Amino acid sequence: MNEREIISLFNGSAGPGGDELVRGIGDDCAVLRLDGDRLWLVTVDTLIESVHFNIDWHPPRKLGRKSVAVNVSDIAAMGGSPRFAFLSLGLPQGFDPPWLEKFSQGLSEACREFGCTLAGGDTVRTVEGVMITLTVIGEVPADQVTYRSTALPGDEIWVSGTLGNAAAGLELCTAGDAGSEDGLLLAESHLNPTPRLGLARRLAGGRLVHAMMDLSDGVATDLSHLCIRSGTGAVIYADLLPVSGPLQRTAGKMGKDCLPWALTGGEDYELLFTAAPGQGGAILRLAEKEGLLTRIGYIDAKSGVRLAEGRPGRQNPPQKDVSFLGYDHFRL
Amino acid sequence: MNEREIISLFNGSAGPGGDELVRGIGDDCAVLRLDGDRLWLVTVDTLIESVHFNIDWHPPRKLGRKSVAVNVSDIAAMGGSPRFAFLSLGLPQGFDPPWLEKFSQGLSEACREFGCTLAGGDTVRTVEGVMITLTVIGEVPADQVTYRSTALPGDEIWVSGTLGNAAAGLELCTAGDAGSEDGLLLAESHLNPTPRLGLARRLAGGRLVHAMMDLSDGVATDLSHLCIRSGTGAVIYADLLPVSGPLQRTAGKMGKDCLPWALTGGEDYELLFTAAPGQGGAILRLAEKEGLLTRIGYIDAKSGVRLAEGRPGRQNPPQKDVSFLGYDHFRL
Repeated sequence: MNEREIISLFNGSAGPGGDELVRGIGDDCAVLRLDGDRLWLVTVDTLIESVHFNIDWHPPRKLGRKSVAVNVSDIAAMGGSPRFAFLSLGLPQGFDPPWLEKFSQGLSEACREFGCTLAGGDTVRTVEGVMITLTVIGEVPADQVTYRSTALPGDEIWVSGTLGNAAAGLELCTAGDAGSEDGLLLAESHLNPTPRLGLARRLAGGRLVHAMMDLSDGVATDLSHLCIRSGTGAVIYADLLPVSGPLQRTAGKMGKDCLPWALTGGEDYELLFTAAPGQGGAILRLAEKEGLLTRIGYIDAKSGVRLAEGRPGRQNPPQKDVSFLGYDHFRL
Repeated sequence: MNEREIISLFNGSAGPGGDELVRGIGDDCAVLRLDGDRLWLVTVDTLIESVHFNIDWHPPRKLGRKSVAVNVSDIAAMGGSPRFAFLSLGLPQGFDPPWLEKFSQGLSEACREFGCTLAGGDTVRTVEGVMITLTVIGEVPADQVTYRSTALPGDEIWVSGTLGNAAAGLELCTAGDAGSEDGLLLAESHLNPTPRLGLARRLAGGRLVHAMMDLSDGVATDLSHLCIRSGTGAVIYADLLPVSGPLQRTAGKMGKDCLPWALTGGEDYELLFTAAPGQGGAILRLAEKEGLLTRIGYIDAKSGVRLAEGRPGRQNPPQKDVSFLGYDHFRL
């Protein structure tokens, strides 16, 4: 049973939600109707010690900030702004109080940074290890909400920032090899990601985006979700995937190719979105000062996500299906 | 560091919530302003294998229902009705798919039973064991919300149902000794609790209740929370604590006293509330057909929760402070 099959199991028995449930299971957030003009967005994410983070080298203040950031990224992906956070914190018997104080400090600093308030929660004991579940409620003007399911054949596919840094950073941290200047930068992508809240708000406000989501499990998997929900396929070009200088140099030193990191690496918390061709200039103007935006391919009416060699322009380049090649918690 | 100190740590850094946060950390739910007439209630609860449940004898369908029930109990305690549920489910590598199907069935049956919709969530891998975090959003008419913090000196203290069944049931299950008719009934209180949703709605709608909360950590601890939030103290009478026939008979067979179970046993998910003296008749009429209600003592202007021997009427009965004698996850 993989992650999608588990989600389907619960989705099948979700039951009717009434008029106030605009969108249930299957997008970055659930969407609830608040009043005529505003929608509420609800997202839940769990981070588990030794699965999502290593307490030996993840500084507690950065972990507190990351717990908020990964949820804020889901709110941002739907065009919204975070408002309220709810923490369910599991701690083992004999946890370290100074660790908890630094974690709490990072979490509350992040709430202030992203404009939300810690409004409730729950504290429980675990058998082993720290477990962090954060629920975030955000809001979005009803005419600006962006879904995964509304990509159209012919759309151009865009990503923000660069891809693969967090996965490479995690690999370096795990190997105890993140000491170089490049290594520290990559590690920071894993330890302390920043969701693209401002950029997402500008994109949603500009109403040029057809479909949007955040990149948490690698573009191969996340774009597959977007395509399935939209009833489309996609082609992306290997040479268009944006890769950072630190990742290129690190891969070079290790004698590795950047592509697997960029294609399947999780936890980038960048934006993945589609827009009609011909809107590129307007989109780049909207994104001004918000960092790099790159077109990586296009949506089509076939099925699956296909990786084409090279870059556009070449006649019938070799393609291979890379659907769901990214991170899956339950695939061996 | 105990549970209250951990909560204080996060409470201290929660930050301002704006006009829409009516009540933050410290009650059964956070309270958000939805529109003029309605408030939203948000609660989060986590159940962890080998801490909150034993997967060897907790049937998965009952565990699915209980995951919803414990959150619905928090919504009920504030006078509300559950609307939306969000599940964060942690599963170990190699979990049993038929187990998950039954769990999912119990969860969705409970959503239907209590009138809420599973609207989203998250699935993650754990290092070991199952971990269930449910966030439930409910609603309540703004003039019917009931808080912990509004008890008044002179109020009578009421509880619904009987106390201590779930704790005794857990003890029997753990010892593999729940096979008798009484044992099965007590075990059911632990395995498959039913929140007092209908009763709580009638009490809140009748507007006779001053303060209300649910009983999750034992009346000694829960009444201590209510008193601290209300700036009051309380006296409860040992002989007034309602105890079920099965618990009395089981305690008798074991040569034990019922009182420790009734006073400190967790997970009853009954209601604890206060009301002005003289409202007893009206309250009992409201609760008609909703089961037993019992007055167990009174609120005063002193501090702490004191247990008096016997029942009211005796001059200066011996008292002892039982504040926070109930369940605390982090006290050894």
